Amino acid sequence: MIPPVSGGQPSRCSITYDKIDTERVASLVNHPNHGASLVFIGTTREMTHGQRTVLLEYEAYVPMALKTMETIGEEIDRKWPGTLCAITHRLGKVEIAEASVVIAVSSPHRADCYEASRYAIERLKQIVPIWKKEIWEDGSEWKGSQTGPWNPLESQG
Amino acid sequence: MIPPVSGGQPSRCSITYDKIDTERVASLVNHPNHGASLVFIGTTREMTHGQRTVLLEYEAYVPMALKTMETIGEEIDRKWPGTLCAITHRLGKVEIAEASVVIAVSSPHRADCYEASRYAIERLKQIVPIWKKEIWEDGSEWKGSQTGPWNPLESQG
Repeated sequence: MIPPVSGGQPSRCSITYDKIDTERVASLVNHPNHGASLVFIGTTREMTHGQRTVLLEYEAYVPMALKTMETIGEEIDRKWPGTLCAITHRLGKVEIAEASVVIAVSSPHRADCYEASRYAIERLKQIVPIWKKEIWEDGSEWKGSQTGPWNPLESQG
Repeated sequence: MIPPVSGGQPSRCSITYDKIDTERVASLVNHPNHGASLVFIGTTREMTHGQRTVLLEYEAYVPMALKTMETIGEEIDRKWPGTLCAITHRLGKVEIAEASVVIAVSSPHRADCYEASRYAIERLKQIVPIWKKEIWEDGSEWKGSQTGPWNPLESQG
């Protein structure tokens, strides 16, 4: 686990080359006044438009990736005050059905929780500098940003 | 763990008096072609409208509760074909910050996953016959269905 970059507040964001411990990410948003938690788990999908993915591999500019992950947490706190958000992204090779990203959000009420969770994953794909290499069964490869019109296939939820 | 009531398909719904094992519920919706999983965790919240909850206690008519939980899974499969849904509800005393319900949903893509997860928790509160007793710090108690106009406070996300 790469130590998180953070200011005064304890960081709830991290980047790892190991399997993500989902329980641990979820525990970072535990709060006695929060009645709802939502944990999003993005995993490597085997079949996309009939093509079989063998492997996904992620790389990042780590300091900037962590900084933008923290920014998402701050944006969520402004939009849904008091809502907590923890994000862990995995780098390196991620096999079929393994998680590449886990986002945990908690809030007093579930409506905010659903909105904030969805916001977090969409923002992550927009602003966090993490690149993905897909390797398909036929030996072909594709590499690029996680969003944008140049992403022909999407092998993660 | 009370054994699930089910037909031919393996059941992904259960009711328990023990602490809910979130990882186990999440693992029930693992699928190699699903790129997104979402785990909703409803917990006992301490403060609601300035009043301190000491304890929540749940009771149910178990066979009917399990049957309606299974129905929610079937409804989700019809509305978002292929989407998987697992639900575990806890009965008995549930202390502050402990989970009373865990709902795991997985789907090839995250948009369906968010919609189906939200649907599952709303439907659970509508149709599953589980009653809640709230005990507050001042010694007062309230008991009733999880939804409806007669629910003056809601101490779960």
